[in-house]
Amino acid sequence: MEVGFLGLGIMGKAMSMNLLRHGFKVTVWNRTLSKCEELVEHGASIGKTPAEVVKKCKYTIAMLSDPSAALSVAFDKDGVLEQICSGKGYIDMSTVDADTSSKISEEITKKGGCFLEAPVSGSKKPAEDGQLIILAAGEKQLYDEAIPAFNVMGKKSFFLGQVGNGAKMKLVVNMIMGSMMNAFSEGLVLADRSGLDQQTLLDVLDLGAIANPMFKLKGPAMVQNNYPPAFPLKHQQKDMRLALALGDENAVSMPVAAASNEAFKKARSLGFEDHDFSAVYEVVKAPEHSA
Amino acid sequence: MEVGFLGLGIMGKAMSMNLLRHGFKVTVWNRTLSKCEELVEHGASIGKTPAEVVKKCKYTIAMLSDPSAALSVAFDKDGVLEQICSGKGYIDMSTVDADTSSKISEEITKKGGCFLEAPVSGSKKPAEDGQLIILAAGEKQLYDEAIPAFNVMGKKSFFLGQVGNGAKMKLVVNMIMGSMMNAFSEGLVLADRSGLDQQTLLDVLDLGAIANPMFKLKGPAMVQNNYPPAFPLKHQQKDMRLALALGDENAVSMPVAAASNEAFKKARSLGFEDHDFSAVYEVVKAPEHSA
Amino acid sequence: MEVGFLGLGIMGKAMSMNLLRHGFKVTVWNRTLSKCEELVEHGASIGKTPAEVVKKCKYTIAMLSDPSAALSVAFDKDGVLEQICSGKGYIDMSTVDADTSSKISEEITKKGGCFLEAPVSGSKKPAEDGQLIILAAGEKQLYDEAIPAFNVMGKKSFFLGQVGNGAKMKLVVNMIMGSMMNAFSEGLVLADRSGLDQQTLLDVLDLGAIANPMFKLKGPAMVQNNYPPAFPLKHQQKDMRLALALGDENAVSMPVAAASNEAFKKARSLGFEDHDFSAVYEVVKAPEHSA
Amino acid sequence: MEVGFLGLGIMGKAMSMNLLRHGFKVTVWNRTLSKCEELVEHGASIGKTPAEVVKKCKYTIAMLSDPSAALSVAFDKDGVLEQICSGKGYIDMSTVDADTSSKISEEITKKGGCFLEAPVSGSKKPAEDGQLIILAAGEKQLYDEAIPAFNVMGKKSFFLGQVGNGAKMKLVVNMIMGSMMNAFSEGLVLADRSGLDQQTLLDVLDLGAIANPMFKLKGPAMVQNNYPPAFPLKHQQKDMRLALALGDENAVSMPVAAASNEAFKKARSLGFEDHDFSAVYEVVKAPEHSA
Repeated sequence: MEVGFLGLGIMGKAMSMNLLRHGFKVTVWNRTLSKCEELVEHGASIGKTPAEVVKKCKYTIAMLSDPSAALSVAFDKDGVLEQICSGKGYIDMSTVDADTSSKISEEITKKGGCFLEAPVSGSKKPAEDGQLIILAAGEKQLYDEAIPAFNVMGKKSFFLGQVGNGAKMKLVVNMIMGSMMNAFSEGLVLADRSGLDQQTLLDVLDLGAIANPMFKLKGPAMVQNNYPPAFPLKHQQKDMRLALALGDENAVSMPVAAASNEAFKKARSLGFEDHDFSAVYEVVKAPEHSA
Repeated sequence: MEVGFLGLGIMGKAMSMNLLRHGFKVTVWNRTLSKCEELVEHGASIGKTPAEVVKKCKYTIAMLSDPSAALSVAFDKDGVLEQICSGKGYIDMSTVDADTSSKISEEITKKGGCFLEAPVSGSKKPAEDGQLIILAAGEKQLYDEAIPAFNVMGKKSFFLGQVGNGAKMKLVVNMIMGSMMNAFSEGLVLADRSGLDQQTLLDVLDLGAIANPMFKLKGPAMVQNNYPPAFPLKHQQKDMRLALALGDENAVSMPVAAASNEAFKKARSLGFEDHDFSAVYEVVKAPEHSA
Repeated sequence: MEVGFLGLGIMGKAMSMNLLRHGFKVTVWNRTLSKCEELVEHGASIGKTPAEVVKKCKYTIAMLSDPSAALSVAFDKDGVLEQICSGKGYIDMSTVDADTSSKISEEITKKGGCFLEAPVSGSKKPAEDGQLIILAAGEKQLYDEAIPAFNVMGKKSFFLGQVGNGAKMKLVVNMIMGSMMNAFSEGLVLADRSGLDQQTLLDVLDLGAIANPMFKLKGPAMVQNNYPPAFPLKHQQKDMRLALALGDENAVSMPVAAASNEAFKKARSLGFEDHDFSAVYEVVKAPEHSA
Repeated sequence: MEVGFLGLGIMGKAMSMNLLRHGFKVTVWNRTLSKCEELVEHGASIGKTPAEVVKKCKYTIAMLSDPSAALSVAFDKDGVLEQICSGKGYIDMSTVDADTSSKISEEITKKGGCFLEAPVSGSKKPAEDGQLIILAAGEKQLYDEAIPAFNVMGKKSFFLGQVGNGAKMKLVVNMIMGSMMNAFSEGLVLADRSGLDQQTLLDVLDLGAIANPMFKLKGPAMVQNNYPPAFPLKHQQKDMRLALALGDENAVSMPVAAASNEAFKKARSLGFEDHDFSAVYEVVKAPEHSA
C-alpha cells in the first residue's frame, strides 16, 4: 500500500517510520525538507510539496502541529486541494477543532476527494510503539480502506461517524483527564498537609479501584515539583475551555470541569502554561508555607 | 496463630473465613449470634461476648459497621475494655473517623493493651479474595505481629504512623475517587448530548492513560441508569464532607472536591442516597429531555 | 440639537421619547415603520432608511436588538455606512460584543465618521424615566458632543476609553450580578429547608449591609416561584460565558462566576431560558420534595 | 425598666450605653471589672459576678465574645445558672452556634427561667447608633417583654421561633454576604486585567440594581489592597463552613457558596485570616504579575 505523509514532527516522524517498517511505500513531505532525510534512509520517497504528494498517492495522511498548519497545508499554493480529486483520500490526523476539520472536509469533498479526520490519543511513546488510539470520523469507506495503516500506527481505531466527532471525542476524554488531574492534586496536597506520606498515598492509589497509568506516571514527578511537558498545561486548559463550550452549546452543566478549568487558568496566571498540565498541582499547593 | 474476630457482616464474614482457610484459629462473635454458624462449620469457635473473645485471644480483630457500633463493642457492658490488658492487642478494621479511633485507642492503652486502627480499601469481592488494602496506624509492634493475618486478608498492608492516619488516608483516597466519579459522569453526559456513543467513550477511556478499574466496572451499568449499591452514595458524600473538613483544618483549598461534594448532596436530595455513589450521574444528566 | 434614532423597540422608543420631550429634534427609523407613528405624534420626523436618517442628521443614535441587527443596520443596503462621512457621528447604544462593536467602528472610521459605543445598564423602567447608566467608549470628542442627549436618556454617563470597553464593563457588572443572584437563591433555599421564613430573610437582608434593589425587587416574586422576564436567563448566561471568556483571555481565575455559570446552564437545560434570570432559583430548589 | 448586662466588649459597651441613655437602669458585669467604670460614670451599677447581676435583675442580657465565653458565663461558678429562676429572663445576644444556644437554653429552662437567643447583624457603628438588627428566637413572651430594650439597641428586631433559628438566620445572611464578596472580588480583578478602571466600576455598580452598602464601603479600600478588619476573614470562613454544614444536614446543594468557601480557605492559607473578609480579593488577584 502506498501512502503520502505530510508533517514530520515528533508524532509524524514516529508514525511514518512505523508505516515504513511494516512495508508501506511512503512519500513524505515536511515544511523543513531536511527532516525528511532520516525517513529516506529507511526507504521513503520525498514529495516537494503537499500537492506533489497527493498527486502521487491514492491516500495521503497529515499530522500537523495545529489548526493553522492544517489549513495552510490544505489551502495554500501547492497545497492538498490542488491535486485532490475523485478516487483520492485525505486523512488528517492532526488535533484540530471541529470547525477547522469541517472546513477542510468541505473543500476536499467539493473536489471529489474523500476526507477523514483521525486525531489520536497518545503522545510520543505510543506513537513510536504503534500504540496510538485513533479517533476517526468522516467517510466510512475511506476509514475501511485506511485500516491497514491505522493498524500499524495504533493499537485501536474507532470510527465515530460524521466529521467533527473525532475532535469532540478527544475533548471529552481530555476534559475527564483534566478534572482527574485536579482531583489527584488536591488529594496529594491534602495528604501532605494532614501529615500523611505522599509516596504511600501513591502506593495505595496504585493498588485500588482508581489506579491508572496517569497517576502512576506523573505522581512521583509531581511530589518532586517536577512537571516535564508531555502535554502542556495551556493546551489542556484550552481543551477544558472547548469542552465547556461544547457543554454550553448542549446545555450540559459541568461544575467539576468548570472548577478544574479555573484552576488551570490560575496555573497559567502563575506562569505554568508551558509546563506539563500536572503543574496545576502548584495551584493547589500554593503557598507552601502560610504567611 | 489464634485470633478473635468481632463483627460478621459482609466484610467481617469474608475476612474471618480467609483466616480460617489459612489455618488461623478463630473465635468469632457477632451481635446476632446465629451469623456465627457458618463460620463454626468451617472450624471457628464462638465467644458469647466481645469481652469473652478478648479474654480468650491474644489478638482481637473488629470489623464493625460504623463508629457507634465500634464504640459500643469497645465500651459497653461485656465489651472489649473489660478484658483488654497488657499483652493483648486490639485491631479495629472498621471504617471510623479519627476521633472515634482515638477515643478507643486511648482507653485500650490506659488498660495496658495495644491498639491498631486498620481500615481497609476494597469492598465485598476483594474481601472474599483476600485482596484488601489495609491502612494500619497505631502501635508499630502490634502491626508487625499482625502481618500474618493481614497477609491472608489483604494483598498489601501499610503502616501509616499514629492513630488517625489510617482514617485520614482512607478519606483522601475516597475524596479523589468521588471527584473522579463526577468527572466521569460529566464526560458521559457530555458525550451523549454531543451525539457521541457512550460505549465508544468507555472503550476509548479504557485504552488510554486514565483507564482504571472503576470506570471499567461502573461505566457500563451507569449508561444503563443502573447503580447497584457497592458503596452507597450517602457514605461517599459523608467521606467527601469529612475530607473537606480535614482540608478546612489544614487550610487546604480544594475547589474540585467541593464542587463534587455539592453534586453528591444534590443526588441525596434527589433520593439517591442509598444507591451506589455512581448515581451522581443522575444529577449531571438531569433532566434527560429539556423542557 | 438634531439627532437621528434607529430602532424603536421597548428601549429605543422610551429613549427617543425622552429626547423629544426635552426639545431635541428627532428623526426616527424602524424596520417596521408603523412603530414610528407614536413618535411622530410627539413631534418626530421619519427617515425611510438608516441611510436617509444619517444623511439628514449630524448625530445618529442606534438602539438595536442584537449584534446581527446592529451589523445589518450599519452594513446592509441603505445602511448607515452609505451616508456616514466626515463631520457625522454614529452612537451605537445596542448591547453587542466587543468584536461587533470594533467591526462597525472600523468601517465608520474608514469613511471619516466618528463612532461611539454606548451600551446601557438598566431596562424598560429606567429607560422611560431617563435613568439609564450609559457606558460609552470610542471617540472622546463625540462623547462630549453627545452629553446633552445622554443627560436626558440617563442619570449618569461614563466615558471608558477605547471601543470595546463599554461592552466589557457591561460584562463585568452582569457577571457580578449573576453570581449574586446565585448566592441569593442558595440563601433563600437554605432558609426554607432549615425551617426559616423566607419573607423574614428578605426583610433581614433589606436592612443590612448587602441590601440592594435587585434582592428587594425580585425576592418576593422568587419565593412565589415567579420569574417575569425582565432580563432573560439565556442572555444572563451568555453574559456569564462571555465574562468567563474575557477572564480566560486575561488568565483571571473566577471560580464563583464559573460555578454560577454552570447553574445558569442547568437552568437552561430545565427549560427556563426565556424566564427571568432569577429562575436560577429553580435549579437550587429542585427537587422541591426529596424522593 | 431594669436590666443586667454581661460583657462589655466593643459591642456590649455600645449597647449598654444606649440602654443607659434611654433611661434604663443597668447593672453591668465584665470579666475585667475595670471596663465597667465608664458605664458607671453614665449611671450604671456594678454586679461582681454574673450570678449577682441575675439575682438583682428580672432581665439579664449577655453579649459575649464566643461560644466558650457564653458557656462559661452561664455554667461556671458564680454564673447565671446559680441565680436564674422562675420569673427571670436571660437574653443571650452573643453570636454562638445553635448547639451552644440550645445547651444554655435547656439549663435555663430546667431552673424555671426564660431564655431568648438574640444574635445581631451589624458591628461597632450600628451598635453605637442603636441601629442593630436583632434576630431573636426562644420564648415569645420574653421577646415581647424585651422589646423596649431591643428598640433602643436596634433599628429592627425579629422573632424567629424556636431556639437555634437566630443562629441559623445569621448563617444564611453571612453565607450570601460571603459569596457576594467573592463575586465582587472577581469583578474587580476582571475589570483591572481587562484594562478597565476599577474606580469607574465601583461608580457604575453604585448606580445600578446591585448597589449595596458593602460594595460602597469596602470597594475603595479593596482596590487599595486595604482590608481593615471589621469582620475577620477567619470568622466569615467559619460561617461559610457552618452554613454549608447546615445545607448538608438538609441536603441543599450550594455550589456557589462552596466555591466561595474554598476561596476563603485559600485566603487563610495565604495568611489573611485576621484581615477583613474582603481580603479574599487577594486570592482572586494573585499573582499580581504573571511569571
